[in-house]
Amino acid sequence: MYKTPISTRTALIFRNATLCTLMAVGVAGADFASAQPKDEPIKPVVPAKIDNPAKVELGKKLFFDPRLSKSGFISCNSCHNLSMGGTDNLPTSIGDRWQQGPINSPTVLNSGLNFIQFWDGRAKDLQEQAGGPIANPKEMAFTHELAIEVLNSIPQYREEFGKIYGNKKLDIQMVTDAIAEFEKTLKTPNSRFDKWLKGDPKAITADELKGYRLFKDSGCVACHNGEAVGGTSFQKMGVFEPYKTNSPEIGRAGVTKADVERFHFKVPTLRNVELTYPYFHDGAARTLEEAVDIMGRLQLAKKFTTEETALIVAFLKTLTGEQPRLQLPILPPSQNNTPQPNPFE
Amino acid sequence: MYKTPISTRTALIFRNATLCTLMAVGVAGADFASAQPKDEPIKPVVPAKIDNPAKVELGKKLFFDPRLSKSGFISCNSCHNLSMGGTDNLPTSIGDRWQQGPINSPTVLNSGLNFIQFWDGRAKDLQEQAGGPIANPKEMAFTHELAIEVLNSIPQYREEFGKIYGNKKLDIQMVTDAIAEFEKTLKTPNSRFDKWLKGDPKAITADELKGYRLFKDSGCVACHNGEAVGGTSFQKMGVFEPYKTNSPEIGRAGVTKADVERFHFKVPTLRNVELTYPYFHDGAARTLEEAVDIMGRLQLAKKFTTEETALIVAFLKTLTGEQPRLQLPILPPSQNNTPQPNPFE
Repeated sequence: MYKTPISTRTALIFRNATLCTLMAVGVAGADFASAQPKDEPIKPVVPAKIDNPAKVELGKKLFFDPRLSKSGFISCNSCHNLSMGGTDNLPTSIGDRWQQGPINSPTVLNSGLNFIQFWDGRAKDLQEQAGGPIANPKEMAFTHELAIEVLNSIPQYREEFGKIYGNKKLDIQMVTDAIAEFEKTLKTPNSRFDKWLKGDPKAITADELKGYRLFKDSGCVACHNGEAVGGTSFQKMGVFEPYKTNSPEIGRAGVTKADVERFHFKVPTLRNVELTYPYFHDGAARTLEEAVDIMGRLQLAKKFTTEETALIVAFLKTLTGEQPRLQLPILPPSQNNTPQPNPFE
Repeated sequence: MYKTPISTRTALIFRNATLCTLMAVGVAGADFASAQPKDEPIKPVVPAKIDNPAKVELGKKLFFDPRLSKSGFISCNSCHNLSMGGTDNLPTSIGDRWQQGPINSPTVLNSGLNFIQFWDGRAKDLQEQAGGPIANPKEMAFTHELAIEVLNSIPQYREEFGKIYGNKKLDIQMVTDAIAEFEKTLKTPNSRFDKWLKGDPKAITADELKGYRLFKDSGCVACHNGEAVGGTSFQKMGVFEPYKTNSPEIGRAGVTKADVERFHFKVPTLRNVELTYPYFHDGAARTLEEAVDIMGRLQLAKKFTTEETALIVAFLKTLTGEQPRLQLPILPPSQNNTPQPNPFE
């Protein structure tokens, strides 16, 4: 269009090169030039990096396999349903023989970001967590020994385990390791809020931004921060007022036997909270409005107005990320010597 | 390599052109030159043709949505699990509050080929079938009215139904129509046996072929024929000897009230029979060997030797086709006004 002296042209080339480098490093994924990543207490979800696809695929099969339960009917996906935000959307779960579970099933999405697992933190990581429900008589009601016997009787499973773990005797650690490896991939990047964090000012509305400012300025971010917007601390449920519940769960104190930790629970992630209703460890809050109101009063001594609650709820719904796109696994069939499910005895 | 006179060369070109046309028309999918489709009583599975992908996608969501049950826990996929051959691999199914179902869940795979639906044929087609379990108090235990209220409260569902059925009031016929449309796509082409039928002599082993010949020559094909290898007639369970069972099911007679149809059941498909254990309407036969032995004695007055049974079983396992490759649907979330699941009352 117009002529530039050679020296200026060279400078432009350098300036553009630098700009491109900055864009690539700083705002990867943003598709506009003016992007400036924001420095906020909430950080964008980093997409999962898959190092061992064969192990992830095996873990997915196990996650969906109801033969890890006594009845042959309940799989990990029954209560952490990946069609429904990684939860069952029930106040408390349904276990073997329709037993009512004691606590709300937390989402498996982004659960690898939790500093510790279960509401009371009794498992140090996803692998330790995965063994729990299989053998819990109120959940899948199986035994680790029988689960191994089932898997070991199925040639395709034996072959897959063999390829990944070498030809060692199949054990429960391999099973929970593969399930955990799959679960670590269940991240939900690119929520509208994350796009805003990465510098797209149009990714959220003015009201949603107001809701975020209110969430931040009211102190919610003290506990709900970081990549998972939670999952990094225990907190007492009911700081300024006691929490009224029919649930007998006492939280962290059940693990540590320390009375000071009574009703201390792991702060849940708020990622995908639009999908993970109902809320709290007892699943007693049906709606986000109810949950925000209770959290404000009990944890922050704040009574949000109806308008403020609506703004915060609007913000919370911007935390819904891209759900994992999974191909439904095809499970290898049982063999004549596979232990039989036992649903009714 | 050697010289051909011009006239012969021209003839060769024509011959090859004709051969190519024949191959394309007659044995599509076969990847060898000598393919000759076989004229047998069993016909290859024709892949599903999808006319209305939006309706299929909606039907898939509904098939996987446990909110069509009273408890919010049981979906179509619970008992017709598409990870497990479209069945639950249990003798009889688990219904609302863990009630034991009366009959074995038949596979949903290739079920569009059935001449009539349910073991006793009480539904004329897949659409009529789909409404049954939702409202059956022993299965999903819901009502059609509540199912509609749930779906109608969810904007994304309203929008999808609106696009497909026009902006009419949502009703149960639309729900079952969409589910049926999805189910019609659940076909399993390209089994090894179908490849053999289409002309690939190496697709099955010599023993598997012996098994097929025995299956055919013994008379099994009288009932188990056609594309689905069954699903086209009612037959009495126990022709030459009475069938011993604890099941109170009387089959077709329950529908027609005609005593002559006592213990008459729809002949099940044998497609994917390797995956759809256990067998028979009462799910009492754990293994294919047991099922073949009983069928031989009761239906054909034949006592197969152990070797013969093994050959027939080997043949039956060649009927496992390509399982539908499905992306797990992401279900639209409930809203504040969505009727709540009610699992424990």
